[in-house]
Amino acid sequence: MSNAAEGTRTVVMERVFPHAPEKVWRALTESQLVAQWLMKNDFEPVVGRKFQLRSEPVPNWDGVIDCEVLVVEPAKRLSYSWSTMGMASEVLFTLSPADGGTRVRMEHSGFPQDNDAAYKGATYGWQSFLGKLDTVLAGLK
Amino acid sequence: MSNAAEGTRTVVMERVFPHAPEKVWRALTESQLVAQWLMKNDFEPVVGRKFQLRSEPVPNWDGVIDCEVLVVEPAKRLSYSWSTMGMASEVLFTLSPADGGTRVRMEHSGFPQDNDAAYKGATYGWQSFLGKLDTVLAGLK
Repeated sequence: MSNAAEGTRTVVMERVFPHAPEKVWRALTESQLVAQWLMKNDFEPVVGRKFQLRSEPVPNWDGVIDCEVLVVEPAKRLSYSWSTMGMASEVLFTLSPADGGTRVRMEHSGFPQDNDAAYKGATYGWQSFLGKLDTVLAGLK
Repeated sequence: MSNAAEGTRTVVMERVFPHAPEKVWRALTESQLVAQWLMKNDFEPVVGRKFQLRSEPVPNWDGVIDCEVLVVEPAKRLSYSWSTMGMASEVLFTLSPADGGTRVRMEHSGFPQDNDAAYKGATYGWQSFLGKLDTVLAGLK
């Protein structure tokens, strides 16, 4: 998706999970669960909370993402900033009822038009993360 | 190591491997061997050859490094450019005789002073790569 006005692109993905919004919300906001599908973290669902996501370092990147919680509306919306490799972006999850479960819309915005590698990496990353989220939810009571 | 004149930093590592320079050279320049300790690649030891190193994508990076061979002096020096995440850098391997083997000096230069994450990632990466190179050499006849 392109956003010509700001010259940035947004990665958008939607998945319907066969679970109640409250359960999906737990997986999005409980640090130990987030660690299972996204990355190691010191997240807390409090607006203004600064936290880090940490993955394995790769050449030219130390694996650290600096974040700050922007929006917390239980079982409805969660947003945080996502800053790494000198690039500032934002992630927004929107939960809504769907037949047999909860629709999760993930929007990761702020990718510069000229940074195709970042956009591709995020696209690949979120496909993987949301797949693991599905697994985590399946194992959650 | 800092290079105040150009405002960049260089990752420098040295290892002595208990093998002849010709064997170390093979591990540095045969594509299938390079894939075992560094990354998947279409490298060929020919000056001017453009090739890619490819690792798994991570969020914000597609895992692709664009390279060009700059120096090929068999069993002595190998250099290639290393461009990724909008950052241009260069790698230089220098081989020299050492007691019981070959000293390999790896210099990866061109890290901007203000990009600590890139420098840290490269430091972590090369420690890992050179450790795997040691393993590859041990298994090479």
